[in-house]
Amino acid sequence: MSRVQEMLEAHPHDWGGLDRAKLTECIEACFDCAQICTACADACLAEDTVSQLVQCIRSDLDCADVCATTGRVLSRHAGADPSVTKALLEACRAACRACAADCESHASMHEHCRICAEACRRCEAACDDLVGALG
Amino acid sequence: MSRVQEMLEAHPHDWGGLDRAKLTECIEACFDCAQICTACADACLAEDTVSQLVQCIRSDLDCADVCATTGRVLSRHAGADPSVTKALLEACRAACRACAADCESHASMHEHCRICAEACRRCEAACDDLVGALG
Amino acid sequence: MSRVQEMLEAHPHDWGGLDRAKLTECIEACFDCAQICTACADACLAEDTVSQLVQCIRSDLDCADVCATTGRVLSRHAGADPSVTKALLEACRAACRACAADCESHASMHEHCRICAEACRRCEAACDDLVGALG
Amino acid sequence: MSRVQEMLEAHPHDWGGLDRAKLTECIEACFDCAQICTACADACLAEDTVSQLVQCIRSDLDCADVCATTGRVLSRHAGADPSVTKALLEACRAACRACAADCESHASMHEHCRICAEACRRCEAACDDLVGALG
Repeated sequence: MSRVQEMLEAHPHDWGGLDRAKLTECIEACFDCAQICTACADACLAEDTVSQLVQCIRSDLDCADVCATTGRVLSRHAGADPSVTKALLEACRAACRACAADCESHASMHEHCRICAEACRRCEAACDDLVGALG
Repeated sequence: MSRVQEMLEAHPHDWGGLDRAKLTECIEACFDCAQICTACADACLAEDTVSQLVQCIRSDLDCADVCATTGRVLSRHAGADPSVTKALLEACRAACRACAADCESHASMHEHCRICAEACRRCEAACDDLVGALG
Repeated sequence: MSRVQEMLEAHPHDWGGLDRAKLTECIEACFDCAQICTACADACLAEDTVSQLVQCIRSDLDCADVCATTGRVLSRHAGADPSVTKALLEACRAACRACAADCESHASMHEHCRICAEACRRCEAACDDLVGALG
Repeated sequence: MSRVQEMLEAHPHDWGGLDRAKLTECIEACFDCAQICTACADACLAEDTVSQLVQCIRSDLDCADVCATTGRVLSRHAGADPSVTKALLEACRAACRACAADCESHASMHEHCRICAEACRRCEAACDDLVGALG
């Protein structure tokens, strides 16, 4: 059991019908993606071809911020307003999709972009799954 | 001219048809709201009636995070993916609306909630206006 | 009276001997600097000479994060552990000093760096003043 | 090899003598601690005894913010100003120590505080180790 999941179990809230496995996966994917996008932006800045990576850096920075906030709001999900959670998951999905597309376009040249695109696709899928589970 | 606006003018990007006054207002409203919600959560924690303010504190914390991220993404708006910006503005509007409603319900008892509700309503309106301007 | 100050006045906490004017100034300087550094990083990314601005972009991003967190922690200052506040103010001062130095080195070429350097110097001074006031 | 470490390896920067295992551990500890402190604050808010947990909630919120920022700045460590990194690690260590002490004081009553105290102590130690490695 991951630490994220342990914390959900230790929460005094009755989670009702909410799928805690999907919530756990989405929280973990958001925090991972926030870290990896931050590191990818810095790695792009260190490339000789930085002037060709500007759009990718911006997508990384946006995605890092949106994922970090989504991970935090989900970590407070007990009693949250579902309209806020859903709108934020949509925004996170959009940010991950955009960043994945940018990173994929040069994944063959930069290993950090390949890893980052994977993390974004995982987070996009986790947001998708959780939106579905929220009904 | 505010510092936010000065920075937009100093940006090398051609902003095209984008309404910079609305962008400026929304960035300022997001950063203000992030600060005020953070302070309101702490003020609620200091009230003797904290056990009745739990939902308000959560809304404050969520709203502070979403506004902070929206303010940052908007500060990088040049060349941003419009689908990300729009989805995030929708999430920010929802977070501000939820927090404003919670704070308004005890605004008559707590001055910090009255001020916070106002900041949330201003930010909600600014997000609304900017979504409209993005087309 | 600014909104930051209004929120401090509305807080149920007894602030004791703490200089609220200095606390207000430091909170405002931190939030302003976080916004301006974020915008400066994006403006640097949009310059043709981006490959010469890589160090400045990194300093901008670090300074934006440290100022944002310092502004939040200060907004919760009531009852905070003074050792945390002081250590964070030291870190914020260091981040502002480093970013100001980077931005000043090309302030004559880029208006956004000139404005950003000013915001960093103001925030550095505000951190300095507040550390002094905390004793 | 963790994803954090993979990203360090994929970075074009020559890391010189820096101990990448310690950097990896500290980045992971910071992101974990940021998530767990956020969840602990929310779990404390859900306890019937919330009025006795106010100080713990504040420490959680401060620690979450400081750890999140430290994790981000460390993820951009290539070419960072060592004085900023060190000062921030000191602040992170102080925030973790304060939060661990608060959580430990009721760890026997609240499982979420027990887990959170552990995460804070791990992050405190990782900051300590990395400060030492930076020389």
